[in-house]
Amino acid sequence: MENETQVRLDEHLEELLELIEARQFSVLRKQLAELLPADVAQLLEDVEDKDLPIVYRLLPKEIAAETFTYMEAEQQQQLIQSFSDAELRETLDQLFVDDTVDMIEEMPANVVARILKNTDAATRRSINDILHYPKDSAGSVMTIEYVNLRRHMTVAEAFEQIRHGGVDKETIYTCYVTENRHLVGVVTVKDLLLADPNSNIADIMETNVVSVNTLDDQEYVAQQFSKYDFLAIPVVDRENRLVGIVTVDDAIDVLQEENTEDFEKMAAITPTDKPYMKTGVFETWKKRIPWLLLLMISATFTGMIITSFEAKLAGSVILTAFIPMLMDTGGNSGSQASVTIIRGLSLGEVELRNILRIIWKEIRVAVLCGVVLSVASFLKIWLFDGLLLGNADITPWVALTVSLTMIVTVSIAKVVGCTLPMLAKRLGFDPAVMASPFITTTVDALSLLVYFRMATWILKL
Amino acid sequence: MENETQVRLDEHLEELLELIEARQFSVLRKQLAELLPADVAQLLEDVEDKDLPIVYRLLPKEIAAETFTYMEAEQQQQLIQSFSDAELRETLDQLFVDDTVDMIEEMPANVVARILKNTDAATRRSINDILHYPKDSAGSVMTIEYVNLRRHMTVAEAFEQIRHGGVDKETIYTCYVTENRHLVGVVTVKDLLLADPNSNIADIMETNVVSVNTLDDQEYVAQQFSKYDFLAIPVVDRENRLVGIVTVDDAIDVLQEENTEDFEKMAAITPTDKPYMKTGVFETWKKRIPWLLLLMISATFTGMIITSFEAKLAGSVILTAFIPMLMDTGGNSGSQASVTIIRGLSLGEVELRNILRIIWKEIRVAVLCGVVLSVASFLKIWLFDGLLLGNADITPWVALTVSLTMIVTVSIAKVVGCTLPMLAKRLGFDPAVMASPFITTTVDALSLLVYFRMATWILKL
Repeated sequence: MENETQVRLDEHLEELLELIEARQFSVLRKQLAELLPADVAQLLEDVEDKDLPIVYRLLPKEIAAETFTYMEAEQQQQLIQSFSDAELRETLDQLFVDDTVDMIEEMPANVVARILKNTDAATRRSINDILHYPKDSAGSVMTIEYVNLRRHMTVAEAFEQIRHGGVDKETIYTCYVTENRHLVGVVTVKDLLLADPNSNIADIMETNVVSVNTLDDQEYVAQQFSKYDFLAIPVVDRENRLVGIVTVDDAIDVLQEENTEDFEKMAAITPTDKPYMKTGVFETWKKRIPWLLLLMISATFTGMIITSFEAKLAGSVILTAFIPMLMDTGGNSGSQASVTIIRGLSLGEVELRNILRIIWKEIRVAVLCGVVLSVASFLKIWLFDGLLLGNADITPWVALTVSLTMIVTVSIAKVVGCTLPMLAKRLGFDPAVMASPFITTTVDALSLLVYFRMATWILKL
Repeated sequence: MENETQVRLDEHLEELLELIEARQFSVLRKQLAELLPADVAQLLEDVEDKDLPIVYRLLPKEIAAETFTYMEAEQQQQLIQSFSDAELRETLDQLFVDDTVDMIEEMPANVVARILKNTDAATRRSINDILHYPKDSAGSVMTIEYVNLRRHMTVAEAFEQIRHGGVDKETIYTCYVTENRHLVGVVTVKDLLLADPNSNIADIMETNVVSVNTLDDQEYVAQQFSKYDFLAIPVVDRENRLVGIVTVDDAIDVLQEENTEDFEKMAAITPTDKPYMKTGVFETWKKRIPWLLLLMISATFTGMIITSFEAKLAGSVILTAFIPMLMDTGGNSGSQASVTIIRGLSLGEVELRNILRIIWKEIRVAVLCGVVLSVASFLKIWLFDGLLLGNADITPWVALTVSLTMIVTVSIAKVVGCTLPMLAKRLGFDPAVMASPFITTTVDALSLLVYFRMATWILKL
């Protein structure tokens, strides 16, 4: 179900596209001036390459630069290549340093060189500093444009400073108090507004400051926002010197990016930052094929288990009919446990030190699930497959073999499912790769071993 | 790899727990006063039930109420039951209405009655209004405490009003301008700070306001934050009357909640709001068993397909050995496509109208993947399983049967994988349920049909 306002916006953007087709640029210019930058960026996504610079130049200045930050790297690059040096300089002047860095990270070397050539020396130095931090670290996503106050300032002086320099700051609502570049406190504009204009910053600032380190993982940074409800978080170096801040809008982007990465890893896809519709066929293939190959080859074990049982199986082919059911149920049981644990780890709700408690809980859940599935499969096989469909090969003993295997398989699957992600985390890997596909492959092999052992034992094969 | 600051905080909280054990309440009181509310809530999670009211009463007043909002419903309820009416009234006075509503939604009727009895008439009316909105709608997550300005006010007057009423507002940074309760504009504190104190609000406000409707889904609300980088979004009724706002911290909670729900649905688990460690064995079982049962029963089809081929299979049991590999690879291929599409839909990157383009893309990716997997499986089966392991049953014809089935299976899987989620969305269901488990079950049956047809054809069975 699509949202009404959404539909109306989409329709309006469609109309604007038609104006572009019809070359009605003066009408278009007026209409564009009334859009929000994020909506302009959405419009530009559907504009043909050749029209992009023309339409972009129709934008009023105050919208243009902000629109630029909302655009995809590919279109940004295209625009930059159409810019004169003067235009490029003007656009870069309007950007926050973190947005420039985000952009640079996606550009080829010659474009980067041109960008750096057209920024002033101080900004260039900041850009180089930020580019130096490891990918996905707090340092790489931070911005250096924040309000910096001193403890001896009065509230009135603080407002003076905010009014003076605030327009170029990414946020003014959280201000940072430093002494010799060391972070000593934070104060919000709300605190300032509610305080006596003559009081000292030192008296109203919060000194219990939560900060992150430049090298902290961006996912950890985003978690702090969801825990403390911050609008911004300060980033400090090893000596507690303030080097930048991360704002909540960037934290949301990080959260969404990390969630997407987890989804992709769980589905055995190499993560990518690119939206699906922008990713080429060949690129999509490259992200998927290595895992498919790896998982296919690892299914060799299941094959070998079946082959080793081949002679006996020839005498009781009916057993083959239940292999998919056993394998799928095992896989699903394992996925349920592994996805729950992976998500819990990523939300910080599950901790490694609880591993024994978790395994114990999963064993009990597994037994409950196993018993129900076991009884259900026994009745289904014996009554439906056997009596109702009249398959004479299906004896109660066959049903018993399957249903007993079921309970063991489910138990193994749940334990493997909750253990593997925690083990991965313990060894420093991302737990998300230990999701359905790997769990399934492991559980498949184990459940077949159990199945054939049960069959040998109960059916005396 | 755990974060250093995190580890230090955890250790500090451990020490505080020891202080509680040792009944060192006066030392504890001092230490608690230095914690942030979110950290106190984290501490309280591990405090024994009987100690909870004692420790909570040690908190300084300004921390206590905020800590309360960070706590899990179960502990909130426990505290309320230990509160006197006076204490309860004091705590409720400090809460924002949206936090009170969140709490009420999780409480049994008698506790709700006591809460409502201890709130003033106006708040009680607001609570009832909010409770009236459907679960997961914008109305149900909004707060009614926002700064409301008039267009004829001057900037100085606006500051006066913010100073006067701001302390009780959930955010003061985005102010809403109304006329006859209709939303006519927004103005940020940054705009106000940078404007001339004598200018009119009407002259500096932004009139192109993005708002959501009370009945909009909370996921849509959260998406607006990630699109427009808002700190708050206004919620209006059908007549564009402002009824509340949603703040960015609540939007982050919604995002995380919705992401968790998607993860759970994709793993065939009924979603729950409760953290894993707080969910009982029986409750966890109840969330998982219906889907396991359903999926197990639906595997009946695969069983029936094998049974119908049983006679022929008896003559060529070696074919059984490759069933798991074909099924797993099909399942994995399908999951890759479905998870990509489900995530794209939820991020708004993939739209229903692109379905044909998407299917065409997936077909091309499928053919690329299929050819590689097909050649790899042929070589693996013929050379490794056949010649190297010396299995005489494995002829090049058997390898050819498997490898041709592979290419067809992967293609079917990718197409089914991308189509089913879009179909679900089109019919108004959540696409997330069309993930791995359902795709796998569907693809299993289809791939077995292809396999046996290939076998009949190539091996002349």
